Amino acid sequence: MSGFFNSCQNQMKYNEEDESQKGINKATKGGIVYGEYLQLDKVLNAQVLQSQQRGDKIHDEHLFIVTHQAYELWFKQILWELDSVRDLFIKKHVRDERNMLKVVSRIHRITMIFKLLVEQFAVLETMTALDFFDFREYLSPASGFQSLQFRLLEAKIGVADHLRVPYNRRHYRDNFHGQESETLLSSEQEPTLLQLVEKWLERTPGLENDGFNFWGKLQANIEEGLKMEKHKLEKMEDSEVKEDLLAELNKQTEVFTALFDPKRHEHLLSKGERRLSYKALQGALMINFYREEPRFQVPFQLLTALMEIDTLMTKWRYNHVCMVHRMIGSKAGTGGSSGYHYLRSTVSDRYKVFVDLFNLATFLVPRSWVPKLNPSIHKFPYMAEYYDSSYNSCSSEDSD
Amino acid sequence: MSGFFNSCQNQMKYNEEDESQKGINKATKGGIVYGEYLQLDKVLNAQVLQSQQRGDKIHDEHLFIVTHQAYELWFKQILWELDSVRDLFIKKHVRDERNMLKVVSRIHRITMIFKLLVEQFAVLETMTALDFFDFREYLSPASGFQSLQFRLLEAKIGVADHLRVPYNRRHYRDNFHGQESETLLSSEQEPTLLQLVEKWLERTPGLENDGFNFWGKLQANIEEGLKMEKHKLEKMEDSEVKEDLLAELNKQTEVFTALFDPKRHEHLLSKGERRLSYKALQGALMINFYREEPRFQVPFQLLTALMEIDTLMTKWRYNHVCMVHRMIGSKAGTGGSSGYHYLRSTVSDRYKVFVDLFNLATFLVPRSWVPKLNPSIHKFPYMAEYYDSSYNSCSSEDSD
Amino acid sequence: MSGFFNSCQNQMKYNEEDESQKGINKATKGGIVYGEYLQLDKVLNAQVLQSQQRGDKIHDEHLFIVTHQAYELWFKQILWELDSVRDLFIKKHVRDERNMLKVVSRIHRITMIFKLLVEQFAVLETMTALDFFDFREYLSPASGFQSLQFRLLEAKIGVADHLRVPYNRRHYRDNFHGQESETLLSSEQEPTLLQLVEKWLERTPGLENDGFNFWGKLQANIEEGLKMEKHKLEKMEDSEVKEDLLAELNKQTEVFTALFDPKRHEHLLSKGERRLSYKALQGALMINFYREEPRFQVPFQLLTALMEIDTLMTKWRYNHVCMVHRMIGSKAGTGGSSGYHYLRSTVSDRYKVFVDLFNLATFLVPRSWVPKLNPSIHKFPYMAEYYDSSYNSCSSEDSD
Amino acid sequence: MSGFFNSCQNQMKYNEEDESQKGINKATKGGIVYGEYLQLDKVLNAQVLQSQQRGDKIHDEHLFIVTHQAYELWFKQILWELDSVRDLFIKKHVRDERNMLKVVSRIHRITMIFKLLVEQFAVLETMTALDFFDFREYLSPASGFQSLQFRLLEAKIGVADHLRVPYNRRHYRDNFHGQESETLLSSEQEPTLLQLVEKWLERTPGLENDGFNFWGKLQANIEEGLKMEKHKLEKMEDSEVKEDLLAELNKQTEVFTALFDPKRHEHLLSKGERRLSYKALQGALMINFYREEPRFQVPFQLLTALMEIDTLMTKWRYNHVCMVHRMIGSKAGTGGSSGYHYLRSTVSDRYKVFVDLFNLATFLVPRSWVPKLNPSIHKFPYMAEYYDSSYNSCSSEDSD
Repeated sequence: MSGFFNSCQNQMKYNEEDESQKGINKATKGGIVYGEYLQLDKVLNAQVLQSQQRGDKIHDEHLFIVTHQAYELWFKQILWELDSVRDLFIKKHVRDERNMLKVVSRIHRITMIFKLLVEQFAVLETMTALDFFDFREYLSPASGFQSLQFRLLEAKIGVADHLRVPYNRRHYRDNFHGQESETLLSSEQEPTLLQLVEKWLERTPGLENDGFNFWGKLQANIEEGLKMEKHKLEKMEDSEVKEDLLAELNKQTEVFTALFDPKRHEHLLSKGERRLSYKALQGALMINFYREEPRFQVPFQLLTALMEIDTLMTKWRYNHVCMVHRMIGSKAGTGGSSGYHYLRSTVSDRYKVFVDLFNLATFLVPRSWVPKLNPSIHKFPYMAEYYDSSYNSCSSEDSD
Repeated sequence: MSGFFNSCQNQMKYNEEDESQKGINKATKGGIVYGEYLQLDKVLNAQVLQSQQRGDKIHDEHLFIVTHQAYELWFKQILWELDSVRDLFIKKHVRDERNMLKVVSRIHRITMIFKLLVEQFAVLETMTALDFFDFREYLSPASGFQSLQFRLLEAKIGVADHLRVPYNRRHYRDNFHGQESETLLSSEQEPTLLQLVEKWLERTPGLENDGFNFWGKLQANIEEGLKMEKHKLEKMEDSEVKEDLLAELNKQTEVFTALFDPKRHEHLLSKGERRLSYKALQGALMINFYREEPRFQVPFQLLTALMEIDTLMTKWRYNHVCMVHRMIGSKAGTGGSSGYHYLRSTVSDRYKVFVDLFNLATFLVPRSWVPKLNPSIHKFPYMAEYYDSSYNSCSSEDSD
Repeated sequence: MSGFFNSCQNQMKYNEEDESQKGINKATKGGIVYGEYLQLDKVLNAQVLQSQQRGDKIHDEHLFIVTHQAYELWFKQILWELDSVRDLFIKKHVRDERNMLKVVSRIHRITMIFKLLVEQFAVLETMTALDFFDFREYLSPASGFQSLQFRLLEAKIGVADHLRVPYNRRHYRDNFHGQESETLLSSEQEPTLLQLVEKWLERTPGLENDGFNFWGKLQANIEEGLKMEKHKLEKMEDSEVKEDLLAELNKQTEVFTALFDPKRHEHLLSKGERRLSYKALQGALMINFYREEPRFQVPFQLLTALMEIDTLMTKWRYNHVCMVHRMIGSKAGTGGSSGYHYLRSTVSDRYKVFVDLFNLATFLVPRSWVPKLNPSIHKFPYMAEYYDSSYNSCSSEDSD
Repeated sequence: MSGFFNSCQNQMKYNEEDESQKGINKATKGGIVYGEYLQLDKVLNAQVLQSQQRGDKIHDEHLFIVTHQAYELWFKQILWELDSVRDLFIKKHVRDERNMLKVVSRIHRITMIFKLLVEQFAVLETMTALDFFDFREYLSPASGFQSLQFRLLEAKIGVADHLRVPYNRRHYRDNFHGQESETLLSSEQEPTLLQLVEKWLERTPGLENDGFNFWGKLQANIEEGLKMEKHKLEKMEDSEVKEDLLAELNKQTEVFTALFDPKRHEHLLSKGERRLSYKALQGALMINFYREEPRFQVPFQLLTALMEIDTLMTKWRYNHVCMVHRMIGSKAGTGGSSGYHYLRSTVSDRYKVFVDLFNLATFLVPRSWVPKLNPSIHKFPYMAEYYDSSYNSCSSEDSD
């Protein structure tokens, strides 16, 4: 896995004639070894049992520590991917379709990590309530609620501040202090993944009123479709079936009337039941309907992966709740906010960031109602077409 | 999940004025129920314990049957996806990039099913060797080796007939008879997934000698790179490091000399160490190097997913071997071909269909050696561009 | 996997001198083959796409069918294990500790199957809302709610009839008709796993008032412990810390006062917040505290596995909810009972059967408060000791 | 999760009248917080990208580091469990059946961790060969082969030194230096899990020649059974079936003749095809046959869990091989020992520690051949019976 390419590449990259290359080569030869590279002296010396510190070593506390450290390691990796994706959206590259593979791959990687984190509960669940009881006293007042990285992760994805369940009647940020509190606050001021995706969706080609005008065409088609449907139903002989069908048609009509009403959208936004701007919602629906167009294949994969993140975070929360129930019971009836009930309340659609993408399923229509593309509209331009000319001057982007 | 859309779509699709629609609606109202829909009378009445038939009911035989039936159900689903993907490649649609999302999604689905099948061993492994011993006599001569669907699956993906390990010194097809044998034979005469992918790779835009000429440019760049490298190394003072570097450079030079030698490729093909045509191999390498180009993002995902299938099939085989070892031991020393040793021999690179895609990793080069795109070459045409004009006449494709 | 043992065992078991054995041997030689054994003609011919029946074949409906069939196959296996465990508890064998390994292994197997079923959603989730929309009209009014086996499974484990969420304001059984409705009704009249476990827990050795008297001793120890604690706290100087500690002590005292109050238990039972009899609850707590005694090791494993079943069923429900959300959205605001909201309401502690085992965690105390065993009490008798004498006459049990 | 129990237990455990307790309480109140407890300053600051150090930051190197650190964290946890199990076997507690629940639970936990580690490859596999190529030069000469913990883990479980595949023609220990080499050497001098299990198996009650004499009885029964079988077959009319049956009977007879031949056992031991002493092998077979006896239920679970460890280690190795194949290809034909081929050679039965437990499946016999227990032999004594008298003086064991 080493040798030639090391040296020759180093040489080419840095200084073709530099005599120090031999030094580099030797260093490579002697080189860094596995344990140093991974800084195992730090990682493997960070397991200090509080029970042991108090002279009462409890075997299972080691598992408790290692499991939580593994969670934090993976949270760090998720933040690494998340920051890089946000960065790709923020920078000028955002207009470059060439970055979409990176974006989708990294979001996909986050979902793979979350899957692992959901599995990981199975290991901690080998600890029984009794094993935990033996050392849980020593942990106070440390609590998983204090995981800065998890809060950052929520904030950066876009969990809304005002939709959070309060913790012991306090704002969640009040549980952090000093540097940590500032880090949280400043992260809340950066654009969230949700906001960046929103901006990106708003630029979906085909939404332009003076161009393909997807939204206008869709509204017209749906209204026409519903009208024809009503007309047809009304001609049916009176029967229970007819009544049912008319009732459903009315319901359906209401749904679509609401969809095309911008004020209704603002209202739902203000209540937190929608999170995307009206324009972005239109873009998302458009990508769904035309997902097989080459231009929209990878964007469609992105929307799917974003829903996956939401789903997995909510599964993670739910698995967490289940574990806590095993470990400390529900403590029903003893009063006071129990960890179990607090956690349970966070397994809620209020914590779903991309809730609008899920709810798109409510607005599907028969394929024949979807506005037709015609050959000249068919090829939505890639942003990259405007970008080509500057291509050679941007080679550093690749190393991001 | 029902009601309005049922009726209105049915009406629109079939016959807007047909009076029989009301009959359909009523049928829908009374309609099909869950158990009928899934034909549970068949599926749930297919568990006949041989032990019970012999008057010696063994509890765990039920698990054995259900597990294998679940495997077969999923094999059927894999074949369903595989056939649809092969069909997309075979039909004229093959020239339509719009189908790539379907192709990638369905290949991805196959990988998800294989992951489940690998997990599924954990259930069967709750049966101990002793539990199995109690009924295994009754199974004879039934054997998992006789799974027609698994053989079809191998054949359709592209496991090579001549690379298979013989089973008890007989050709694998000789273990099947009558209709099954014919089904196998005829499936071997259809184009395999490997062959279809090969044809598709051979058409990779950019390979044309009189166009971008990827292969020619790449060869030139690599030869130049290696020469410069050699030149530089030779100027170094004599030392052990220098010797090592030169030795490695020579090895590397051999690798690439071989890569650019078509005769060498034919030789490896004849031995089964390569499976793709020379042109297809070039296409695959090209897709790897330019994977971030919008044109190549989804093709790159496809190559990745194909490797995943190979990997998962091999993991499935290996998990199978592990289970058999637990169930019947290795029977070392008793002579005769043991199931364990036969199965173990199939966990081999000879059974990897897309082995060339794995071995591409051997031919990676520094990014600076990859032929540069320039703005005018940058946009490889989508096949769809030739296809647009006929778009409206092909609406049936969607229902595939 | 065949041959010798087949024939010789057959011969020994059935008729050592029977000439027909040769016939059997030949039959074995010709024998049953894989496809017949698994009745694949039934299993693999049960995939009829409604969309195809209506002349509009939708590719993904096949996945939908196969996935649900796989669920039903595994539900059948779970019922098979569940019935066998209930049978072991019901029959005279219930007094035989020799059966505990079987009981624990089979309950463990059920948990392994549920884990697979939770994973299995990942396959169905490769279908997008749009893919589903294309055929969901044809399914009406079939619905997963109509899975007889899932309802049987719930009923047999012990989901309480009166704690269920009504479905469209109707009793859940009203959604079944004819034979299915009767099967459900009669299954509700058999003893549930919960009831059988309850009876078994009530017999936990050590609960006898006139023997070890675990409950009496425990109450005394806890009261003494709390009293000493209070005494000590009261001697502290007044401070905020003291107030906090006293407040918590009071809460704790309330918890234990309630635990030792049989009327309180009856009250919680009537509300469905507890499900086990008072005596059974005592047995469960006892097994927890003395789990390392050889007599209680396997019983403790059983309690753990029962919680696991509850947890996994609830995870299954939650994953189901997540999938439905993706497939059909929440349909918020359109009125009518949405599938999503109904399903969400079943992810509730009301559906946890062994909720008391989880809540035991609320009643843990320092090890020093647990009544000490002394050598003469130490060895709780195995039921098997009474059983030995009849051992040889019961050989048929093994084949159960 | 805090409060009362903290303070009251601290007080009770350490010094009921010590005034410093209030200090402890305050400390508890201010207390340790999550980040300190987990030493996140160490764990989360240990990700130093070599590529970044060289001024060429490659995004995916972070994943590479975090994944390996997560592996090492879990290896540490496995070693923690393994050492505790070995300790339970080594200490006087070894005679105490009360420890068997701990032993089995901890071995089971190790299997759960290994399952996670196998899953974990899925995350690293989101990195493509091209992503890896971009930074792999910087890693040299670090290699996963240098993981001290993995070598310790192998050594402590009992991978035999002389059965290992050499690495680049050198003894595996020669790849470690200084402190690490010494740690390895000293770990090889401690008793391995295999050796401790062997000693424990040798003490299986019922093996005593002058007691139940399991081995003698078993041999007699099998010889008798085979003789009767032969007699019966010889009376059959001549036919192909008869020939087959006789041939199989002869094979079977050879297998059992070899089983009862201690010299044969020594021979297989010397070749590494068996790893347990003859006596221990007898104990393992006995536990298998009588696994439903209360005395043997948990021991049987232990044997099953030990096989699971072997299986999972081998699956881990195999998944590792698959990943390496994707990352660097097989480099076939370039000469030199490739990482891929080395790793592949370690996926071998030579690395299976508990291979004898797997091969027990070869020696199963019909239940009717298993020596019968009679009531007086039935209850094998628990070691704990000798241990009771000293019970009260050993309370410290619980905190182990």
